[in-house]
Amino acid sequence: MAFEAKKLINDPNNAVTEYIEGLMETYPGLQYLDGFPEVDYGLYVIWPFCPVHGVVFICSDASFSLTIGQVKVVLRADAAGGDYSKVAVISGGGSGHEPAQAGYVGEGMLTAAICGDIFASPPVDSILAGIRAVTGPMGCLLIVTNYTGDRLYFGLAAEQAKSEGYKVETVIVGDDCALPPRRGIVGRRGLAGTILVNKIAGAAAEAGLPLSDVAAEAKRASELVGTMGVALSVCTLPGQVTSDRLGPGKMELGLGIHGEPGAAVADFQPVDIIVSHVLKEILSTETGYVPIKRGNRVVVMVNGLGATPMMELMITCGKVVPRLQLEHGLAVDRVYTGSFMTSLDMSGFSITVMKSDQAILQRLDAPTKAPHWPVAVDGTKSNRPPAKIPIPMPASRVTKSDESLSRPTQLTPEGHILEVAIEAAANAIINIKDDLNEWDGKVGDGDCGSTMHKGAMAVLEDMKKYYPLNDAAETINEIGLSIKRVMGGTSGIIYLIFCKAAYAQLKASAQVTAKEWLEALEAAIAAVSKYGGASAGYRTLLDALIPASEVLKERLNAGDDPSAAFALSSEAALAGAESTQHMQAQAGRSTYVSEEALATAPDPGAMAAASWYRAVALAVKDNCSAP
Amino acid sequence: MAFEAKKLINDPNNAVTEYIEGLMETYPGLQYLDGFPEVDYGLYVIWPFCPVHGVVFICSDASFSLTIGQVKVVLRADAAGGDYSKVAVISGGGSGHEPAQAGYVGEGMLTAAICGDIFASPPVDSILAGIRAVTGPMGCLLIVTNYTGDRLYFGLAAEQAKSEGYKVETVIVGDDCALPPRRGIVGRRGLAGTILVNKIAGAAAEAGLPLSDVAAEAKRASELVGTMGVALSVCTLPGQVTSDRLGPGKMELGLGIHGEPGAAVADFQPVDIIVSHVLKEILSTETGYVPIKRGNRVVVMVNGLGATPMMELMITCGKVVPRLQLEHGLAVDRVYTGSFMTSLDMSGFSITVMKSDQAILQRLDAPTKAPHWPVAVDGTKSNRPPAKIPIPMPASRVTKSDESLSRPTQLTPEGHILEVAIEAAANAIINIKDDLNEWDGKVGDGDCGSTMHKGAMAVLEDMKKYYPLNDAAETINEIGLSIKRVMGGTSGIIYLIFCKAAYAQLKASAQVTAKEWLEALEAAIAAVSKYGGASAGYRTLLDALIPASEVLKERLNAGDDPSAAFALSSEAALAGAESTQHMQAQAGRSTYVSEEALATAPDPGAMAAASWYRAVALAVKDNCSAP
Repeated sequence: MAFEAKKLINDPNNAVTEYIEGLMETYPGLQYLDGFPEVDYGLYVIWPFCPVHGVVFICSDASFSLTIGQVKVVLRADAAGGDYSKVAVISGGGSGHEPAQAGYVGEGMLTAAICGDIFASPPVDSILAGIRAVTGPMGCLLIVTNYTGDRLYFGLAAEQAKSEGYKVETVIVGDDCALPPRRGIVGRRGLAGTILVNKIAGAAAEAGLPLSDVAAEAKRASELVGTMGVALSVCTLPGQVTSDRLGPGKMELGLGIHGEPGAAVADFQPVDIIVSHVLKEILSTETGYVPIKRGNRVVVMVNGLGATPMMELMITCGKVVPRLQLEHGLAVDRVYTGSFMTSLDMSGFSITVMKSDQAILQRLDAPTKAPHWPVAVDGTKSNRPPAKIPIPMPASRVTKSDESLSRPTQLTPEGHILEVAIEAAANAIINIKDDLNEWDGKVGDGDCGSTMHKGAMAVLEDMKKYYPLNDAAETINEIGLSIKRVMGGTSGIIYLIFCKAAYAQLKASAQVTAKEWLEALEAAIAAVSKYGGASAGYRTLLDALIPASEVLKERLNAGDDPSAAFALSSEAALAGAESTQHMQAQAGRSTYVSEEALATAPDPGAMAAASWYRAVALAVKDNCSAP
Repeated sequence: MAFEAKKLINDPNNAVTEYIEGLMETYPGLQYLDGFPEVDYGLYVIWPFCPVHGVVFICSDASFSLTIGQVKVVLRADAAGGDYSKVAVISGGGSGHEPAQAGYVGEGMLTAAICGDIFASPPVDSILAGIRAVTGPMGCLLIVTNYTGDRLYFGLAAEQAKSEGYKVETVIVGDDCALPPRRGIVGRRGLAGTILVNKIAGAAAEAGLPLSDVAAEAKRASELVGTMGVALSVCTLPGQVTSDRLGPGKMELGLGIHGEPGAAVADFQPVDIIVSHVLKEILSTETGYVPIKRGNRVVVMVNGLGATPMMELMITCGKVVPRLQLEHGLAVDRVYTGSFMTSLDMSGFSITVMKSDQAILQRLDAPTKAPHWPVAVDGTKSNRPPAKIPIPMPASRVTKSDESLSRPTQLTPEGHILEVAIEAAANAIINIKDDLNEWDGKVGDGDCGSTMHKGAMAVLEDMKKYYPLNDAAETINEIGLSIKRVMGGTSGIIYLIFCKAAYAQLKASAQVTAKEWLEALEAAIAAVSKYGGASAGYRTLLDALIPASEVLKERLNAGDDPSAAFALSSEAALAGAESTQHMQAQAGRSTYVSEEALATAPDPGAMAAASWYRAVALAVKDNCSAP
């Protein structure tokens, strides 16, 4: 089955121009040359004018036609005008490799990028227009990938520019290591290594070096770099159908970046094994493509081919570096991981290894404003701290001893009241278990009573063993942990958050009076509301607790006796919980239940909260009111 | 058919840890917390020790279990240790959204990122470990995406950290605009808008603001931002089979970033139409999700979902900005285009729009070392120059008038010799046409003679009309253009480069003597060799021309009469061309021909070059030797 690939484009024929328009919207430091060029180098007298588009076309039966299309040149806004005071560094080629090359235009890297149509060399006129736009008295360096079309077109433009008086040098990059050395000269394609050459040349130019030195640095860099790619899928040109050349479970080794088949097809493997193979090919002493041997220093680029997620690139990178170090005996100075030179929507990666030294690193680390150069890979931390650091201990653990976690043999009066209140609360939940299950059967999954019962039982059990009852804050904390230990689902973590927030609040207080309990309740409600996402009226436990805390606050402020105020607030809790029967659910599972069904029962979570709250209030009242 | 997705991973269960390892190899400014945490907040006394992995697990039947896995926390190397002097900004959540959030850790943005497993909230212990590792006396802000798990887990960690004495604030981001407002609270998911909130909070913290102010800025930002996504494919978890939920020609509108189905499925459209729809949803006054109305200023993020090529994102961006400006009446202050918050290998994009003002822009423009924040989108160029600039005219055009392109009525002696020589060269090619075709039939596609014949005829024709024969340089230039006009294929452009290089060389000379002709020949050979990629012995026209230039140089240096030297060199050309019969091909189509076949004929291109060269030499000799 063949289907047209889904692509975020409008007109397949206009994709490159629309790409450049987006680039301009994103990066204010870039400009582009617009329009159709006047026909150059004297051809205009012999070429007929084409009425379509108002464009002059060349009459030619050539496969390498010099067709004059829309110029697509991206350049530095601050370097245009012909009086640029440094060496201009220009690269380019067919499009479809984004962000290459236009994404590398910026101070410290490329001065201009010449964009061809997808996988097609740019017309000579575009290249010439780019040269003329940014080349000043210091001249320009053309960095050209080793494809016949690019070589010839950039070459012709270079010669024409020279005849116009420009100083022009050209460096051709062929870094592919996938194919064995052969008789022909076409074997070594220009791949992602070109990006490193661009950066080195751009930094040399930015440093103010003359053209011959910039060209020499670029040439040297091109001789120190090797690349090999692996494709997991075949790229699809805009408007075309997706190829099924690569079946499931297969990969292509030694791919090109124009959809050309790889040097070999192999079964797909874990990335560690693929990486091992690719590095051996790049560093093969048999081909001798790169002059790198054990003990050398290198920089490495792990490059995505267009549709490879960052996670997979980083996983790949994490295997590349140790293998370079351990298997090949190389010191890795810098690592660049990302999608730098792509092949449309191809899935897969390439690895580039470049021999490095202080001169190379200085250029790679030099600052640049090119949007897609990975600036965070700077060299200022060559004495980087270890990547892994131990997990810090909690500050509080140091002072908290195990003995603190045991039931005191002697309870203070407050500790006694706390014990009685907790016991009452737990028993209230135990007693209401069946009701809770019944209500939950109508509006939820029917296990609220059983779940809460588990929590209550755990609290009772743990309290006897080790609740530090004389310390209210720590005891509340332990209640949360007891509940969470046995209660699954969201309700368990909600109660843990409730207790944890109350604990933090109580812990911050020197003494614990009714006022502090109110503040703890308020903090607990706020935390549950914030992290659980519910508010009053959402048909949750908050519909019991919020009215309770409001009444409690009001009565305490009014000067009521604390235990009376507490008892009064517990009536509000109950009333609030009962009122949930007529609420629509806005949180939790009940949101999926119909309004009619909801009206048959109150929210069991709210009823449970009201029950334990009321039990606590009555226990406190009984114990505090006693003379 | 269902196949396991091809992914660059090793163990699906270890993907996140291996991702972090790659991140560490790439960015020396980052560190990560390693190992399994000691069980925290007092739970260790009640949880059994699990012999598998030597890890403590919680006994729980919970769907939200507090399972303690390996801590995955990425942090700033320079902020670890607990004495960080500014507010720490911490974000995180499930993995699978790379580069979010770990890629945004760096000075000026996040202080730490807490990574969960793929699409799973990080365990509370991981979050706590992260808080403890980077939080100093100024406290920390947690930026949490609005998913139940993230809210509860970060919430619990926040409360625990507070109880340990840390100052903690939390801001929850829910920027999704895809779903209509509904009763529940789960509707607005946290999407790519979170990245902008991270940047704003990070910059506020970097500026030294206290926690309450940093939290207030983050909260405000979260209320000004809206996002909606479009998926062209469904993401696949590592180790799982690829879903075919989305058929060909369909897209999902309002997707989530965890593979959850979109709000609607629609027929795929050109991106301009998709963009229009998405922007209307985000800015809908009906939902009122973002407080943006006509005349407001905004920033916009065009975000790729993992497998979307940069070209397509930029094309999308190029449609987003004009529509915001023209249809919605908004001023667009900043545009961020890239893959910022992804969904594994999902193809598609999201658009985020945030209301902007000076305060927001100041934070977004503030410098940062976070690896994946797009630093080149700086605001220093708010008065940016126009994106489009006109194509520059060639400097030479100004002085070159049309009259220069006509045959002079009076020829100088040199002009006469040039005319005779060109005529002789063209006739030599015309005469050898059939031989060239025959040779080419044996080693190529059989049309070399016909092709060269066309060129020769065009030269003869054009010369009569307008070759400026008294100007040797310009005449050579015109010969190249005549040839290219009619000769297709590589040979046409090769001859154009040949003439262009000779032209540039001749033009630079004040007078044209034999020495200048030699230099022009050498420059032309160098250009053809460089851009064509061939050298001596590659079985090309260079095998005629290189020996000729060498002999010519030698004889001129020896003081020979120029025309005699020229004639002698033409014998070397012929000998060189004939020697190609025993060469293997290393360039051009003949590389595909067997050695046996190649031995049956010389290279026709070399023979053609030798023919015209010899004809020129003899014509020069005949005309110069005359007294």
